[in-house]
Amino acid sequence: MAIVLDAMGSDRFPDPEVEAAFLAADQLQTEIILVGQQQRLQPLIDQYPSSDRVQLVHAPEVLEMTDKPARNARRKADNSMAVGMDLVKSGQADAFVTAGNTGGAMANGLFRLGRIRGVKRPALTTVLPTQTGSAVAVDIGANADCKPLFLLQFGIMGSIYAEKVLGVKNPRVGLLSNGEEEGKGNSLVKETFPLFKGSTLNFAGNVEPKEFFGGEVDVVVFDGFTGNILIKTSEAISKLLLDILKQELTSSLRTKLGAGLAMPAFREVRNRLDPRNVGAAPLLGINGLVFVGHGRSDATALVNALKLAKQSVDAELLPNLKQAIQEELKTADQATGES
Amino acid sequence: MAIVLDAMGSDRFPDPEVEAAFLAADQLQTEIILVGQQQRLQPLIDQYPSSDRVQLVHAPEVLEMTDKPARNARRKADNSMAVGMDLVKSGQADAFVTAGNTGGAMANGLFRLGRIRGVKRPALTTVLPTQTGSAVAVDIGANADCKPLFLLQFGIMGSIYAEKVLGVKNPRVGLLSNGEEEGKGNSLVKETFPLFKGSTLNFAGNVEPKEFFGGEVDVVVFDGFTGNILIKTSEAISKLLLDILKQELTSSLRTKLGAGLAMPAFREVRNRLDPRNVGAAPLLGINGLVFVGHGRSDATALVNALKLAKQSVDAELLPNLKQAIQEELKTADQATGES
Repeated sequence: MAIVLDAMGSDRFPDPEVEAAFLAADQLQTEIILVGQQQRLQPLIDQYPSSDRVQLVHAPEVLEMTDKPARNARRKADNSMAVGMDLVKSGQADAFVTAGNTGGAMANGLFRLGRIRGVKRPALTTVLPTQTGSAVAVDIGANADCKPLFLLQFGIMGSIYAEKVLGVKNPRVGLLSNGEEEGKGNSLVKETFPLFKGSTLNFAGNVEPKEFFGGEVDVVVFDGFTGNILIKTSEAISKLLLDILKQELTSSLRTKLGAGLAMPAFREVRNRLDPRNVGAAPLLGINGLVFVGHGRSDATALVNALKLAKQSVDAELLPNLKQAIQEELKTADQATGES
Repeated sequence: MAIVLDAMGSDRFPDPEVEAAFLAADQLQTEIILVGQQQRLQPLIDQYPSSDRVQLVHAPEVLEMTDKPARNARRKADNSMAVGMDLVKSGQADAFVTAGNTGGAMANGLFRLGRIRGVKRPALTTVLPTQTGSAVAVDIGANADCKPLFLLQFGIMGSIYAEKVLGVKNPRVGLLSNGEEEGKGNSLVKETFPLFKGSTLNFAGNVEPKEFFGGEVDVVVFDGFTGNILIKTSEAISKLLLDILKQELTSSLRTKLGAGLAMPAFREVRNRLDPRNVGAAPLLGINGLVFVGHGRSDATALVNALKLAKQSVDAELLPNLKQAIQEELKTADQATGES
């Protein structure tokens, strides 16, 4: 098995990537292919004891965070994501991991690897913290306007990922809505509900944010606009709350002293909510395993991401996704035939 | 001036309502009309020194939180909201305040008072805390599916409310989106953007949640589905964060001690984020002043709500809303005529 690591991905590339490659090659006993600018990477690689398991493949161009993803995936044809994904496409590697721009990864993925047959729209995925652990969220931004069938496929793919890779038995799948009862929602949710109900998914019905963050489902599905707003609202509110708390904690000697003593607790809260712990999340629906980690990823986070990619290869995530989509299409055909 | 207070609204009705009526009558020098079940209210009222400024109007029925709002607004024709709003309609009172079910208030409002002429859809409003103070958010749940013109009117009405009642000069109005640049958003946002740009609003463009909660606009506009998800996500994340913090703070003697010392800071955070401080928010677009406060409102929160209602009467909120909508219609007619 070989996993490609985009060496030009994280905010502080390429140092964390090179460190992660050597750590993961050793810990996971897996070949890691670093893809990026050779002149920047070789001196860093030379600082480590040479390893048969770490390879370097040159890619002259870098996708910047500010780049227009779709345009530059084509224009910068030799960017590190494109070159790395080509290794997956040609069978020289089994999965691709990056901490770079998510939009760039999606655009390169669509352009280089294409979609799984039958998938209407690939989706961005993430894993969010909940009261009881974590849950898969899909789509968090790839498709601002969705049709009911897109959402059904997001649910199917999210469920397969939760089950096969994250080890959740019979994952509970919820549809995010503004009310729990059937019949609540905007027209998209209302039209999607019967598709979920009629599917083989373990459908938990509509869920509101409090049920989702309360841990009542393992997978939550929404259109990419709503998902993106939910993620960004979570981040904004966490920041607002912690900023206000910080202001108040430094407002008197007493509270300052208390804050000092309580510091281990604050650190632990930050740790539990740190997106880097998750490592990465897959682009579901792309015809190849592509994982995108947080831009702030350090070497540890990247090793976690590579581990997740390896687990996904071991669990045959891609064939499982393909099979589930084929079954869904067959059921849909039968339903059309019967009607 | 007379303001109606729904005596059967808050979670712990009618005690906070009766207390608030006497407090507000004195503090605001305004007549307060309590509407609700006489047999429950009279004994409470009799405990206060009699006041010319506090009146009781009997309404035999109560709208429960679990009631189907639209159905029961019609079926329970003598519920306290309906009777109270009729007093506004007949001119015996100038504004109506309730801490009851928002959906019930909207349904009764539509049924009893109707819409302002030209308003496509009335909206639910709230005031949310931001880094720099607070901002008006509209629509937070009345209209799950919206058209661009609905959103334009939400922006116009939100702006008038922020300016005339909350005293914000030339309020900055933002359109919530998944990216700041023009062209970002789902199709609704993309189609609405040019309407905002071509209006007389002080349009700040698209805003993401971090800009909104960062205090960059005074009014934020979204469809009722997105708005509802944003509000509920905010609440769910605050709860998740504070629950995790509590767990961690009680995990060791040291952090427990720290938490004890830091308690005034925690109390202040809760206080700054407490929705009760806002008092209430108006149903914008209803042809009459209707304010809905939080179900958890105590007497102080209700007095704040009554104060806001009084300020709205003083500021001629309703005539100002009517005029702004008429001007918008005129501009739209001219645009159609010219084209």
